[in-house]
Amino acid sequence: MSLDHARAKPHDRLAAALEGDLALVGALIRERMASEAAPRIPQVTAHLIEAGGKRLRPMLVLAAARMMGCEGPFHVHLAVAVEFIHTATLLHDDVVDDSKQRRGRPTANLLWDNMSSVLVGDYLFARAFQLMVEPGNLRVLDILANAAATISEGEVLQLVAARDLATTEETYIKVIRGKTAALFSAATQAGGVIAGADSGQEEALREYGDALGIAFQIVDDLLDIEGTEAIGKNRGDDLREGKLTLPVIRAIAGASDEERAFWTRTVGRGQVEPADIEQARGIMERHGALASTRAEAMSWVERAKAALDRVPAHPLREMLADLADYVVAREV
Amino acid sequence: MSLDHARAKPHDRLAAALEGDLALVGALIRERMASEAAPRIPQVTAHLIEAGGKRLRPMLVLAAARMMGCEGPFHVHLAVAVEFIHTATLLHDDVVDDSKQRRGRPTANLLWDNMSSVLVGDYLFARAFQLMVEPGNLRVLDILANAAATISEGEVLQLVAARDLATTEETYIKVIRGKTAALFSAATQAGGVIAGADSGQEEALREYGDALGIAFQIVDDLLDIEGTEAIGKNRGDDLREGKLTLPVIRAIAGASDEERAFWTRTVGRGQVEPADIEQARGIMERHGALASTRAEAMSWVERAKAALDRVPAHPLREMLADLADYVVAREV
Repeated sequence: MSLDHARAKPHDRLAAALEGDLALVGALIRERMASEAAPRIPQVTAHLIEAGGKRLRPMLVLAAARMMGCEGPFHVHLAVAVEFIHTATLLHDDVVDDSKQRRGRPTANLLWDNMSSVLVGDYLFARAFQLMVEPGNLRVLDILANAAATISEGEVLQLVAARDLATTEETYIKVIRGKTAALFSAATQAGGVIAGADSGQEEALREYGDALGIAFQIVDDLLDIEGTEAIGKNRGDDLREGKLTLPVIRAIAGASDEERAFWTRTVGRGQVEPADIEQARGIMERHGALASTRAEAMSWVERAKAALDRVPAHPLREMLADLADYVVAREV
Repeated sequence: MSLDHARAKPHDRLAAALEGDLALVGALIRERMASEAAPRIPQVTAHLIEAGGKRLRPMLVLAAARMMGCEGPFHVHLAVAVEFIHTATLLHDDVVDDSKQRRGRPTANLLWDNMSSVLVGDYLFARAFQLMVEPGNLRVLDILANAAATISEGEVLQLVAARDLATTEETYIKVIRGKTAALFSAATQAGGVIAGADSGQEEALREYGDALGIAFQIVDDLLDIEGTEAIGKNRGDDLREGKLTLPVIRAIAGASDEERAFWTRTVGRGQVEPADIEQARGIMERHGALASTRAEAMSWVERAKAALDRVPAHPLREMLADLADYVVAREV
């Protein structure tokens, strides 16, 4: 792959730098999602895993491992394990949210059925577990096992907090640290550990992934209100599902009686008309909730970059720093 | 616990012999199902895990470990891990089957919602993974990771084979080896490994668990037709769900045209009236399908006991042999 490095997006520059490893990741994904016993499994998996996913989480494993001097081959196993865990959570999320579209295509639960999504998710989780065991590194297993538990706690917490207008910012951070940042931080931390990073470097990599993941999810939640349809999911989905995202929480904090009635009807009761998305955006702008949410995301980006400064200089380190900047600059 | 050993059921004798270990298992279950972040989790889990489950799988781990000389403490972690995996699959199964009753009580998906069942199942699977990592034994991790993959393959295969009257006995065995026997065999094998069993003993324990699990599931499927309501699930559930169990497969193999129409309407299309359960039983009896299925289960019991003969004599070994006999003798 040839790239104009000065102008390419950080994500594409990382993909170019990790091209060889990513080819191995792709091959291992195809090998391990196969099931002789049940051909339905690779059908469902392929639908999702080859549907233009950005391979962001595998790249975090690979970049962390390579910049810490990893010679392989097991960083590839961990990268695939992390992608399988991610895919499994997407399959289960789409059942939980009853989603109809993901990455611009119909979801697996719509194409097949909820049962297939639940069971194939379980299968991918088990395959991830097998892949993690193969390097024979108990520290890596510990990191990924803890991440798996934190992810599901975040998902359950999100479910319980849905439609609850009293949700605090602290709860919001706990939810997104679970559902998104836990896998980012496990990816960078495990990548470092498999490369033999010392405990200070391991912690720096973990902090980078954690802060990057939180910034990423805050911006994802902003795009539900501000974004174009190009993100592949429908604008306003979070609003319809009653998710208390940061701009919603901040807009509610300063709401007039009339605005409060609006939030109670939409987020609280799920009565969302198409025009409500623009009205939500207007209320948020009136309270500065969009700007302050973006500032919050940027503060996490700064934390991510500060953590990176604690690992040795490396071209991949600079790309990971640029990636953090890009996470808040992106529009899709 | 005081028991009349000569008359007590093998399951109760095992529970008495493993009383101290089982108390530790109960305490660790309560400790590890807790979630500070999401109190919904222990609610859902407690509903299922304390609902009179027989703790059969944990006892297989404990008995295998103890009879091979295990001094602890990690056989307890593995026993809890196996119970959590089992509970997670029950939660997901009830979503997949849209079940209303389990062990005579409303299912979690009915009391809460499908979302909670999916996500709490994921949480328990992650907690199981953490428990398995703690002993620091890679061989044990390998066994349990492979079991997890085999379980979900079996579940997916069952889903795909449902309502397909052309399902073969070979597919049936593959399904039940996955959905039931894989966890039984992983339990006995991992129990042996954590106790330091040699490879021949490990294989004997695996074969025992595999054969016991297959016999157990064949009888479970028989009880769907022959059983009383005391089993806690409703008689005829498998028939309504279009599951091709062994007596159904054998009855179809010799079906007249009229009988074939009956199976197509009921198992194939899901049009099951209350009177159809008795009619199904009558057709099966006419073809000897119930007797031959019971004989098939007994042949697996013999395999289970033959495998046990390859590990050293021990009082727990005799209880495990008796347990195999009991599995086919039980009426609930």
